[in-house]
Amino acid sequence: MKLLRYGPVGAEKPGILDADGRMRDLSAHVASLDAEALSPRGLQRLRAIDPASLPLVDGEPRLGVPFTGIGKFVAVGLNYSDHAAESGMPSPKEPILFMKATSCLCGPNDDTVQPRDSTKLDWEVELGIVIGTRAQYVPEERALEHVAGYCVVNDVSERDFQLERGSQWDRGKGCDTFGPVGPWLVTTDEVPDPQALDMWLDVNGEPRQRGSTRTMIFGCATLVSYISRFMTLLPGDIITTGTPPGVAMGMKPPRWLVPGDVVTLGIGGLGQQRQRVVAWNG
Amino acid sequence: MKLLRYGPVGAEKPGILDADGRMRDLSAHVASLDAEALSPRGLQRLRAIDPASLPLVDGEPRLGVPFTGIGKFVAVGLNYSDHAAESGMPSPKEPILFMKATSCLCGPNDDTVQPRDSTKLDWEVELGIVIGTRAQYVPEERALEHVAGYCVVNDVSERDFQLERGSQWDRGKGCDTFGPVGPWLVTTDEVPDPQALDMWLDVNGEPRQRGSTRTMIFGCATLVSYISRFMTLLPGDIITTGTPPGVAMGMKPPRWLVPGDVVTLGIGGLGQQRQRVVAWNG
Repeated sequence: MKLLRYGPVGAEKPGILDADGRMRDLSAHVASLDAEALSPRGLQRLRAIDPASLPLVDGEPRLGVPFTGIGKFVAVGLNYSDHAAESGMPSPKEPILFMKATSCLCGPNDDTVQPRDSTKLDWEVELGIVIGTRAQYVPEERALEHVAGYCVVNDVSERDFQLERGSQWDRGKGCDTFGPVGPWLVTTDEVPDPQALDMWLDVNGEPRQRGSTRTMIFGCATLVSYISRFMTLLPGDIITTGTPPGVAMGMKPPRWLVPGDVVTLGIGGLGQQRQRVVAWNG
Repeated sequence: MKLLRYGPVGAEKPGILDADGRMRDLSAHVASLDAEALSPRGLQRLRAIDPASLPLVDGEPRLGVPFTGIGKFVAVGLNYSDHAAESGMPSPKEPILFMKATSCLCGPNDDTVQPRDSTKLDWEVELGIVIGTRAQYVPEERALEHVAGYCVVNDVSERDFQLERGSQWDRGKGCDTFGPVGPWLVTTDEVPDPQALDMWLDVNGEPRQRGSTRTMIFGCATLVSYISRFMTLLPGDIITTGTPPGVAMGMKPPRWLVPGDVVTLGIGGLGQQRQRVVAWNG
């Protein structure tokens, strides 16, 4: 299934794509795509519904984050060896974990707001893992059983905030609108191998990132298992799993995002996103 | 007001301390101490209630986190110059921000569970700032208007996870039970100067930390203002503001917590906490 939420910010309704890729409204069946809906039982209930029986969604409404109830937005750093190299940092011996503030979450096509003092705004196409059932100290071989699905994430980053004002990255990773998620939550049955997904990102139509989840240093099962040793993963939590090469920071000279730029990105089978960069104008 | 939540995990009821320090039940007036209750209007409504008119709470129930709806648990590192020195790190030029996972939140007297592979379990008594109204790019002189109240936080830390497995601290800061909060949310009217509060922490009755919020490098108003430049602070968010000297890591040799240890801590006017350390036994 490709689950989604559509409508204005704060008033999104649940939806699903039908076999022809058209949006259908799920409101009659679930109030929201929350932790309960993401559970194995919840997903089974949704699977029993024939999308063709649901009302078509009119027009082209805004898309929101495709599910709700996100308690944690865990991120993995330098998880592609080529990206570690372009960042001038060694490949990590074990996963590097940091956190994106949940207040940075936004819809896949919402504007990216450049913060007031930002000078080094950057992009990162990433595979997002969405947790479906509580995971605590889970072994690698059972880790993916705790996953409800996958989604596209742009791990938007401000490199000055992240790297040049002290040692901890979270400052430059969780600004408002730095976490576009979606367009869809694609359930695991439609993603037979999360380590074989093509990834791409363009800026103003020019290619920037081309990669595959195949070259992750630590794969999805390893990450879920690893993180579950340090914090219990709960339904609705997202893990964003690192980015392949091609970020602005790695270009010589860097070509940071500026207002007016348009970022498009996608992952094979998971859909695509489009963000326009705008200046903060508060 | 001293607001609190009491009862079993997941079934806490709202309460308030009366003039004699006895717990009274607020259930007839608010369903929960959530973002709405923490707003200026919500707090005003609670202030209009005479605690003496409320039912007394029987016995000595467990205390939970004194409010709900915590979207972000932002932490500030090395914010007391003496603690930076004992950690062998330079005093920061601007606040160091990291994040504690919200899944680490627990009641003030709940057991601290030592994670499975933990070898360097440590404590940190800290002043917690609780946000009452949305704060985005707020100037320092107006920052405290966005605060609903203050509370005691133990920023429990695992130093091997935090410092010896890569550069990012979040891994060792957000383990389950690493965020005891409470006993009370003390509203700002009862904390005339958040920079003049005594802090203490004992292990098994032996003094470990003695300090005052007076020696913070970056005070509460500076922190709220600073953080609001990097992420919008929302009602219910907590900022834990760093710890004075006296952590295990700073002792020669370090005296890490082990199962059976009892940690007691408190801040003047904000109440005290007591945690027993237990081994993870999953």
